[in-house]
Amino acid sequence: MTDHSATATRRAVVLVSGGLDSATVLALARAEGYSCHTLAFDYGQRHRVELQAAARLSAQLGAVEHKVLQLDLRAIGGSALTDDAIAVPETRGGEGIPITYVPARNTVFLSLALGWAEVLDASDIFIGVNAVDFSGYPDCRPAFIAAFQALADVATRAGLEGRGVRIQAPLMNMSKAEIIRAGMAVGVPYEQTVSCYQADSYGRACGRCESCFLRKQGFHEAEVADPTRYV
Amino acid sequence: MTDHSATATRRAVVLVSGGLDSATVLALARAEGYSCHTLAFDYGQRHRVELQAAARLSAQLGAVEHKVLQLDLRAIGGSALTDDAIAVPETRGGEGIPITYVPARNTVFLSLALGWAEVLDASDIFIGVNAVDFSGYPDCRPAFIAAFQALADVATRAGLEGRGVRIQAPLMNMSKAEIIRAGMAVGVPYEQTVSCYQADSYGRACGRCESCFLRKQGFHEAEVADPTRYV
Repeated sequence: MTDHSATATRRAVVLVSGGLDSATVLALARAEGYSCHTLAFDYGQRHRVELQAAARLSAQLGAVEHKVLQLDLRAIGGSALTDDAIAVPETRGGEGIPITYVPARNTVFLSLALGWAEVLDASDIFIGVNAVDFSGYPDCRPAFIAAFQALADVATRAGLEGRGVRIQAPLMNMSKAEIIRAGMAVGVPYEQTVSCYQADSYGRACGRCESCFLRKQGFHEAEVADPTRYV
Repeated sequence: MTDHSATATRRAVVLVSGGLDSATVLALARAEGYSCHTLAFDYGQRHRVELQAAARLSAQLGAVEHKVLQLDLRAIGGSALTDDAIAVPETRGGEGIPITYVPARNTVFLSLALGWAEVLDASDIFIGVNAVDFSGYPDCRPAFIAAFQALADVATRAGLEGRGVRIQAPLMNMSKAEIIRAGMAVGVPYEQTVSCYQADSYGRACGRCESCFLRKQGFHEAEVADPTRYV
């Protein structure tokens, strides 16, 4: 065995959801040599089976630590993903911001990742946002990541002391097919990822919602057999 | 009685902690005519009696709604205010960032306020940060508020649609004495506010910590009798 203990390892906080994108980001960060601390949120989401997938994928993809923060976004409401009174649509409803958008979700998640990064003295935060397929979400765009980076540079002790945290969104400009091909190259077990907005308690996908549609299309375009388990 | 029902009322989310500063901000926002929705956090703080004060002050100062979000920042750690392993110092420890700094706290609080503002269609968020007395905290400075404003402008549906939320920090450049004088003019019941980092379960202040020191000095300089209840 090789002794890596003398090698200075950069730490990263990686936001994980149990879905395809964040699993790919975790595998890419590991492949770059980061020591990864994964962070998931129990925020009252309907698709809670994601949380089990996030924990399993973190272990399997070599995270050194996995943390789940409790944060009840249902108390704020306003999204089909957290509000029982709003139905998840089966197809994308044309132009505009989808009803599945959770108000300020990525802002909140990155803020908490920033706090943890500061405590860990981590140099990087990885997030699996993507502007290509989900361009309807305001907080999945390059302008959002750039603005959060500028905030992080002034918001923290590390920032003030010149050791600012870098916000990395490596999937930003990739298509779903490109993401899948990149992930296959670093061994992401996609059969364990859960993307469906209304997966059943075994993690099986509905095959009909917007998220299932984009994922299915991605495997097709990547020319990779779709390993998703459907109901 | 005058009927104000036809008047369009601007909504605001006001971050409240039960302390002197946020109570003043709430009273100032009400005096400007905002319909105020107050938001407090149960984040594992030692000084939990603050939460009771926040609820009482919200009702008394005319908030239309008061919400408490559960958010366990102890899971992240790194501050004397949330980590039982770190003692609260009795005096300010010289230069630099105080140990009572909670990593990314105001970033996290503003993010959640932003989400709620979006759901409420509120035009403004008020926060009681102040750069004069607490200049050691990175997230209490004008540069931080400006960066968060820039983030809010791109992070939300409202921002994309041109109805961006305004981040207001009216106390930013005021001394504690100026804050107290402004608050007295709009009827803040300061005897009900809790600023002490280690207040007892009746809300009585220790009189010795940094927060108590700044508050005491503020009343002295404002030439207002200190109504604080001490142990």
